[in-house]
Amino acid sequence: MVGEFVARVSGLTKAWLFCGLVMVYGSMVCASETGKHIAEQGAAHASAVACATCHGADGGGNDALGFPRLAGLSAAYLEKQLQSYKDGSNRNPVMASMAGSLTPGEIKGVAAYYASMDAVSHAAAPAGVPTDMGEKLAVEGDFSTRGLPACVQCHGPGGLGVGSIFPPLAGQPFKYIEEQLAAWKSGIRTNDPLGMMKYVAELLTADEARSVAAWFASQPVSQGGKSRAKKTASSAVHTGALPHHGEVTSGRVAENDDYFSPPSRADYPDGPFGEKVKQGEEIFNNTNTHAVSRKYVGNEQVCSGCHLDAGRLANSAPLWGAWVSYPAYRRKTKSVNTLIERIQGCFKYAMNVQGSEAKRPPAADSDTIVSLVSYAYWLSTDAPTGDKLIAGRGYRKIPETSQGFDPARGKLVFEENCAVCHGANGEGQTAQGEVVFPALWGAGSYNWGAGMHKVNTAAAYIKWNMPLGIASPVQMYTSLTDQEAWDVAAFINSHERPQDPRFNGNFARTSSKFHSSKYDYYGKLKQPNGKLLGENAPRK
Amino acid sequence: MVGEFVARVSGLTKAWLFCGLVMVYGSMVCASETGKHIAEQGAAHASAVACATCHGADGGGNDALGFPRLAGLSAAYLEKQLQSYKDGSNRNPVMASMAGSLTPGEIKGVAAYYASMDAVSHAAAPAGVPTDMGEKLAVEGDFSTRGLPACVQCHGPGGLGVGSIFPPLAGQPFKYIEEQLAAWKSGIRTNDPLGMMKYVAELLTADEARSVAAWFASQPVSQGGKSRAKKTASSAVHTGALPHHGEVTSGRVAENDDYFSPPSRADYPDGPFGEKVKQGEEIFNNTNTHAVSRKYVGNEQVCSGCHLDAGRLANSAPLWGAWVSYPAYRRKTKSVNTLIERIQGCFKYAMNVQGSEAKRPPAADSDTIVSLVSYAYWLSTDAPTGDKLIAGRGYRKIPETSQGFDPARGKLVFEENCAVCHGANGEGQTAQGEVVFPALWGAGSYNWGAGMHKVNTAAAYIKWNMPLGIASPVQMYTSLTDQEAWDVAAFINSHERPQDPRFNGNFARTSSKFHSSKYDYYGKLKQPNGKLLGENAPRK
Repeated sequence: MVGEFVARVSGLTKAWLFCGLVMVYGSMVCASETGKHIAEQGAAHASAVACATCHGADGGGNDALGFPRLAGLSAAYLEKQLQSYKDGSNRNPVMASMAGSLTPGEIKGVAAYYASMDAVSHAAAPAGVPTDMGEKLAVEGDFSTRGLPACVQCHGPGGLGVGSIFPPLAGQPFKYIEEQLAAWKSGIRTNDPLGMMKYVAELLTADEARSVAAWFASQPVSQGGKSRAKKTASSAVHTGALPHHGEVTSGRVAENDDYFSPPSRADYPDGPFGEKVKQGEEIFNNTNTHAVSRKYVGNEQVCSGCHLDAGRLANSAPLWGAWVSYPAYRRKTKSVNTLIERIQGCFKYAMNVQGSEAKRPPAADSDTIVSLVSYAYWLSTDAPTGDKLIAGRGYRKIPETSQGFDPARGKLVFEENCAVCHGANGEGQTAQGEVVFPALWGAGSYNWGAGMHKVNTAAAYIKWNMPLGIASPVQMYTSLTDQEAWDVAAFINSHERPQDPRFNGNFARTSSKFHSSKYDYYGKLKQPNGKLLGENAPRK
Repeated sequence: MVGEFVARVSGLTKAWLFCGLVMVYGSMVCASETGKHIAEQGAAHASAVACATCHGADGGGNDALGFPRLAGLSAAYLEKQLQSYKDGSNRNPVMASMAGSLTPGEIKGVAAYYASMDAVSHAAAPAGVPTDMGEKLAVEGDFSTRGLPACVQCHGPGGLGVGSIFPPLAGQPFKYIEEQLAAWKSGIRTNDPLGMMKYVAELLTADEARSVAAWFASQPVSQGGKSRAKKTASSAVHTGALPHHGEVTSGRVAENDDYFSPPSRADYPDGPFGEKVKQGEEIFNNTNTHAVSRKYVGNEQVCSGCHLDAGRLANSAPLWGAWVSYPAYRRKTKSVNTLIERIQGCFKYAMNVQGSEAKRPPAADSDTIVSLVSYAYWLSTDAPTGDKLIAGRGYRKIPETSQGFDPARGKLVFEENCAVCHGANGEGQTAQGEVVFPALWGAGSYNWGAGMHKVNTAAAYIKWNMPLGIASPVQMYTSLTDQEAWDVAAFINSHERPQDPRFNGNFARTSSKFHSSKYDYYGKLKQPNGKLLGENAPRK
């Protein structure tokens, strides 16, 4: 994605391009020094111009010509891109020549150099290209009707990038972004870790791609930027992507007319009620950081981590499915619960409230609950009250497999498919202070009382929703096989996590009272330290 | 209703009847002694048989011949019935002759005598007359589709009677009840205080009247009776009835297809959720006495006192109208409230929780709230979520009148139309421990924070719902004029009632902060004791 020339740049002759590619060889001691030299003067040993010639002395790129900004990007990301030009997973003759002339050390050096620079951009939205549609797709996606995640779900809030895998899009030139989307689609570029960009690019029309590119071009390169995109709906949700081993269960563009459609994000109600709805949506997406709700969250989780597309997506436990079916009897509590009690349960378990500042779930009349309930209610506009079997409620199921489930097999599935986003230790990733990829175990994750700690629940969720963008519970395509989903769910839930808040001081009794299910490792599986899972689980 | 022969009784010849009507004169000292003598032996001065000849030695009536039971009925009621035979407001030749021969003192005496006897009945449902339909009409009425109140709404729980106006129906002979319904309808009997029985009788088909009569005939005459009717839905709601001065705003049988229909009472859900729904309905109808909810009620009110037909009736603030329109912004609280908060507000104000055992409204996760919310949710089955303008929500409005409103004028309206049920001092009436006619002011009534204390709110409610059975907010007929409704609402709300729970210790400030409306007498109207209304209002 970084540092390539585009051969057909208008107004730039190939003659000029090749003429400029004269590199000077020079031996440098430290990588960064090497990088600085190459960036500013080119590499001494090869026929390459200085990077700065095209990418600017400040590394801010060239907007008119569509050369990307490099300054402030992740070193690992930049290094990978240069390698991609060498290995052909991103085909660009100019950059192939440039990168091909550099030694591994020089590549490291130039990557480190640009990573150390302050982020800067000279890009702007081009005249005549509307950005409204692009903003909507970038920030909200179009999950329900075509399985399209929002760009920011992986590229982070404001498109400012997440870790070393998901580069910033904000402030990249319009031409650059547009051309990359075309390259993913055509297969010119294939160096995305999990093949996800091809899925995404194929879902966009040419006009949409232009609009998305124009919108990101207009965005500031840092959180404090003057026109930083507003914090929005879908900015904190899982992602992931895979070597796509298929198993598309039905057509990718299957109809989903059968599902309830919540109101458009453009149609917020007016007045104080509308403000409450909007706040509810913000809390839903940024539960652990929102000023109103953060004191109730004892880990690194957000509601939208388990209820995708900000609680809108059918078969991903949508809020509208919950609204119309509560109050209801729950086996977990052995009583009839209101939706408010159900949401308080989410704070107790999924949000591990025991480790929070508040220690107790938000009260029924708290701003947090009233906001969330207002949001759920509004999302459910026109849905029929009492339809406990409404299509798309809850999660899709997953059948049992003849091989059962096995954490050891699941470990491989995890490393191949999940670690890229959720981290090698399941620790998740945040960006700009927001959860982008939630923690799957450990202190930042849901506790031993949450529904997701059950292997069957997690397997079903993972099968139909993960990796994000290449699985869809609405359009009915998946990436993982049933067996992989079972195994990776077993692996994830075979790790320690915060204590069950129902723990009564007696491990054996807590274990037998609440964790007798065969899908539950609490009190059953021995950890490397010799303790059973849950035995010494921390409250926090 | 009491003590008349029916001339066309089958198998009984007129000859026999007249032959039996020989009365013996004798002077008695005390009325009760006189009564006993007349009852057992007839009056000495006139040609009348002993009452016991037809009504039985025990006063239990004669089931086969349709002579009503008298034992245990209210003395005032019995006296009035004998007067009615004299003045022709109940036309019955036999009883006219009987009553006509008695002096006023003798009438008092015989009434007192039967009132002092233990209630007893020999009635039973006749073979071949189904009672299911009758039970339903007696206990639930058919409010929404034809404005028909349940019999028990005036005649009290189990049809055991209320005060001296509404006699017991339980254990009266089938023939007797059937014939009385025919007499109300035909105008043979017109001695109901507010003309209401004619309205009711006209709404019943002949089969329905037979079924109602059969069901009441089968009911025990006391609360502990072996087959006492179960405590049901609509057993505690206002009533009233008037000299009907017309003003029918539209046809009595207008269609009401436009209104949402809650599920039938026969269709309760199964399992623990269904149990919660049923309990919610019971609490709704018997809030101040139900074991679960009574500790939250600091007066003599029930939810169904303001939400008629157990929260089902369109334009009478039905629960389904509330369910689909909350959460919502409320001016009263200046914030967005959930339905649970709204219900807690009812306890705070309408139920005067400050005077209760609990002192605070039920918590959001209390059995009371979960039950009420389950009931509201179930009643709303299939109603469209978010329809804040659903037809029939809230109360009908009432226009302002050129004369404004005036408690002095309202006093006359009250005495004529309301006192018969709600009592001369607005104190309401209970029967069998249940609220039948709620208190309208004083310690048993809603407090100064309840919406109903506003004259405009009360006027609209009264205009369209009172007197019960001869006004309907669905079929659009009323008994009171707009002016009468305004005035009587002003009269009712010009009396002291429990303190506003928002009272902050400073009367002037509480008054100006919460009671500035021109429809509000709090802090404005001087009482006979020289204090302003609300100034010394008790908490209880």
